[in-house]
Amino acid sequence: MTEVRIAPISGIPEVAPGDDLAELIVAALGENGLLAGDVVVIAQKVVSKAEARVVDATDRLATAHSESARVLRRTGEMIISETRHGFVCANAGVDQSNVERGRLALLPLDPDASARRVRARLAHLTGAEVAVIVADTFGRAWRIGQTNVAIGVAGIDPFVDYRGQTDAFGHELRATRICIADEIAGAAEMVMGKSGGVCAALVRGAGARVARGAAADIVRPRSEDLFR
Amino acid sequence: MTEVRIAPISGIPEVAPGDDLAELIVAALGENGLLAGDVVVIAQKVVSKAEARVVDATDRLATAHSESARVLRRTGEMIISETRHGFVCANAGVDQSNVERGRLALLPLDPDASARRVRARLAHLTGAEVAVIVADTFGRAWRIGQTNVAIGVAGIDPFVDYRGQTDAFGHELRATRICIADEIAGAAEMVMGKSGGVCAALVRGAGARVARGAAADIVRPRSEDLFR
Repeated sequence: MTEVRIAPISGIPEVAPGDDLAELIVAALGENGLLAGDVVVIAQKVVSKAEARVVDATDRLATAHSESARVLRRTGEMIISETRHGFVCANAGVDQSNVERGRLALLPLDPDASARRVRARLAHLTGAEVAVIVADTFGRAWRIGQTNVAIGVAGIDPFVDYRGQTDAFGHELRATRICIADEIAGAAEMVMGKSGGVCAALVRGAGARVARGAAADIVRPRSEDLFR
Repeated sequence: MTEVRIAPISGIPEVAPGDDLAELIVAALGENGLLAGDVVVIAQKVVSKAEARVVDATDRLATAHSESARVLRRTGEMIISETRHGFVCANAGVDQSNVERGRLALLPLDPDASARRVRARLAHLTGAEVAVIVADTFGRAWRIGQTNVAIGVAGIDPFVDYRGQTDAFGHELRATRICIADEIAGAAEMVMGKSGGVCAALVRGAGARVARGAAADIVRPRSEDLFR
């Protein structure tokens, strides 16, 4: 089985509204820097900046409320809410870090569409059919700390599905559906960090299935969710 | 910033009670296969096998109940429970896949101790101070699919803590405490798979801080948990 390699995409300058992220990524990597099957992971924050999803506001909690479809829990200066995309996260993803004072970054309106656009532009610029994941840092129930997860996906199936397969002992592998998109997003975080200015990473060898996948497929419908 | 590389540790034979996992890993990797700072990720299933935590039983649900400290949810043939370690997962981690018919694998009694033992043996056998993570495949609230997470940790801080640091705009990075142990465990899953017989992986370049960490530190205390 092949090795997986995760490299930071360094040298992308501060992103402004309207910037072409694919162009910035290709400029940073070089034209031959992408191969078919690669996954490009991009931090949500720069996608939001490129899409002008940074607003003049200072009241994070009020903004978080306005970005929420539903508030699940309140605690101190934070809410855990469900966004209009169906993501469950702190403050509906509204964040002041790495944006100018007096402004707040909101999640992209449609991060799957963002991923598809960057993917199409990367294919146009380089000829390489790569996958794109837009990643954000979410907390989890039951476990301390946050990890990066996929909020936008294009060009791969976000799952590796073992249902119906059998192990070496002939047992069916039940309910084993790995969310490789989240594992890739988390892995990429290791080279991106939070304050180092690295807003994208290249993951090679992950072996995800090329398909029309979307992060919307990762959202557990409320009707099937035991914890909402 | 350095690249992260994740390689399968192939060629480990079927593990039996009493087997020395560190010896099997060194035999598979070669004596010079480990470097200081590497993280060795081992699947929970082989740790359970080596520690004779595989029992004669066929009623998975009954066994899951007996392995649970508390049942949070019931659904069909599955429970979501809190284990005695404090982990929240399906069926208290009780699993029939990749064990003989008529038997069920339980979680290690103390996966942090398991990780520490393997780490000490690896240091003894190779002279390399590596970290060890015991990984299992858990579902999540709100999101479809499972990812590998750390249930045992030795030799690294499971977190990268950005609290108190500032971004390029002078904002404090609030509540940003990345669970790198879970990100490493999830990344390793990409080369381990579920049915391919690869029960360990080597992660190089993750940059986790060498420390006396434990997966018990990742368990969110029930008193601070908004979803339990």
